[in-house]
Amino acid sequence: MRATVIYGERDVRLEEVADPILSTGGDAIVRVVAACVCGSDLWPYRGVQPTDEPHRIGHEFVGVVEAIGPDVRTVKVGDFVIAPFYDCDNTCVNCQNGVSTSCLNGGWWGSDDQLGGFADGAQGEKVRVPHADGSLVATPSMPDDAQVPGLLTLADVMGTGHHAAVSAGVTTGSTVVVVGDGAVGLCAIIAAKRLGASRIVAMSRHADRQAVAREFGATDIVEERGEAGVARIRELFDGIGADCVLECVGTKESMDQAIESARPGGMVGYVGVPTGGPIAVRPLFSRNVGLNGGVASVRGYVEELLPEVLSGAINPGRVFDLELPLADVAEAYAAMDERRAIKVLLRP
Amino acid sequence: MRATVIYGERDVRLEEVADPILSTGGDAIVRVVAACVCGSDLWPYRGVQPTDEPHRIGHEFVGVVEAIGPDVRTVKVGDFVIAPFYDCDNTCVNCQNGVSTSCLNGGWWGSDDQLGGFADGAQGEKVRVPHADGSLVATPSMPDDAQVPGLLTLADVMGTGHHAAVSAGVTTGSTVVVVGDGAVGLCAIIAAKRLGASRIVAMSRHADRQAVAREFGATDIVEERGEAGVARIRELFDGIGADCVLECVGTKESMDQAIESARPGGMVGYVGVPTGGPIAVRPLFSRNVGLNGGVASVRGYVEELLPEVLSGAINPGRVFDLELPLADVAEAYAAMDERRAIKVLLRP
Repeated sequence: MRATVIYGERDVRLEEVADPILSTGGDAIVRVVAACVCGSDLWPYRGVQPTDEPHRIGHEFVGVVEAIGPDVRTVKVGDFVIAPFYDCDNTCVNCQNGVSTSCLNGGWWGSDDQLGGFADGAQGEKVRVPHADGSLVATPSMPDDAQVPGLLTLADVMGTGHHAAVSAGVTTGSTVVVVGDGAVGLCAIIAAKRLGASRIVAMSRHADRQAVAREFGATDIVEERGEAGVARIRELFDGIGADCVLECVGTKESMDQAIESARPGGMVGYVGVPTGGPIAVRPLFSRNVGLNGGVASVRGYVEELLPEVLSGAINPGRVFDLELPLADVAEAYAAMDERRAIKVLLRP
Repeated sequence: MRATVIYGERDVRLEEVADPILSTGGDAIVRVVAACVCGSDLWPYRGVQPTDEPHRIGHEFVGVVEAIGPDVRTVKVGDFVIAPFYDCDNTCVNCQNGVSTSCLNGGWWGSDDQLGGFADGAQGEKVRVPHADGSLVATPSMPDDAQVPGLLTLADVMGTGHHAAVSAGVTTGSTVVVVGDGAVGLCAIIAAKRLGASRIVAMSRHADRQAVAREFGATDIVEERGEAGVARIRELFDGIGADCVLECVGTKESMDQAIESARPGGMVGYVGVPTGGPIAVRPLFSRNVGLNGGVASVRGYVEELLPEVLSGAINPGRVFDLELPLADVAEAYAAMDERRAIKVLLRP
């Protein structure tokens, strides 16, 4: 089959690789219907994270089950399934606690699993899923093609935006600021709205993303950043800041922006992979601003969000503004790197 | 009147100072019945925080109202009152949000208030309270002398321990670790127990404090620290750590201990004044461990905790294991500095 391999800075290639084979009894082979490029894939692509040796890449996919091991109970051949951006058994103590990204038996796409097998990267034609029962959620029926982008967001960005909102404690009447206008930040707006936020500020400087933000439920747009951004946010909220701030970037600047935009006693829900180094505690301590979040346990959110995606009540698939064949995966990375696209969907 | 002045490292003196006078209309003069030395007073005492010029010190007191300004409505001359470790109006937006330590009009004992007057330090014979209605809570009747230590803890340590527990989200069935066996850490055990924790581990190496911890509700004691401490805690809790960790020290070591002792998805409630520098985000992010807390808004907790202190349902006054006349304030500091006492109560 063909799958994407990253070789180094700005060097991703679609290559012929070995077909996956069932090996653990509880695994499944899924034929990928759609995959995509994540903002976090850009860290190795840009060389910010070094690529020591070529390896498979991609961690978001939906597809159709092609084969299952003898122990698999919850999905069957022919099912359309959503996979989270990681593999998990959904039964261990951490999964039970709702933190399936810390699954004791889980792993990551594009790497060896704990049983010695290989879990393929998602930007390819097929993926072996080590824990099929724990990881995969089947849709009630075969979705329309137009529903595929929305379903694909449940693999990562919609669940991750939701995690930011849940971690920040967004509830009926909350005032919310979203830092980051990438796919996750935009999905965080959807999440904040459906959780009942009374006012949602999107911090964005790009007209196209501002438009999506408004469509998703943002009530205000703030273009300023840094101290000017903080001043504008505080001006909007009683001079003190917002109840909940959703940090969806991960840099030092975005984290500072988030912390200073929260009101005393407010909470920052953060899901951006941290690339900004250590943070000072005093600005949190002196104003009682909390920090909660992390690697989003999106598997646990699929059941809650899936019906709304299928019914069209929420439309997170809108974050995909470019669709390319898998053969053009290199162009997909370039388009996101150069900000020509918010998020690129790939069809094998 | 006499009041305590700190001059520098290990140099506190009881001196003759000017009597306070009413000045703002909403203020009150309180005759101090009992004050005490706080762990945080030891930072300047030990020279960790430099003392640039001599100033008044002490921020915990209870007393009897001696005079009130014409605008005061909620306390009257002769009332026995509890003051929080800060002054607040209890009406501004931050106070309404439950974060009275960020009161827009508040201030700190031993410094000028925002109206140009002076709020006396608490280790003295009298204190002028700028916002009497916002800051002071009167007891229903004159307490017995034996009740005074417990009431005094509502000025800081009991409320601060409670803040750690509330910030960490302790609720029915929570597993809890308390880092720090000072007065705040011990009160945090009381708080965790009354909020319904199923198991409470006190991290302590001192037999006298372990005894108080057990008395307050600790179910387990862990003496190990650092990596050994983390290993022991994880062993006690399914190999993963506790739901809630209450950080009541503020050093780098104690913060690391707290973060690593929380399970994936757990929450650290921290109230120790941070002295440890910046913290790494990755250990929080990768395991979804949240960090919540700050300068405890104890004013807001007095109404909830006061009846239980008065009834004896909780006995936080037990943290005072030495009582001295105010004239011996220097000895009170030395006893705490040398760990001869957990907490020293001072009677003017």
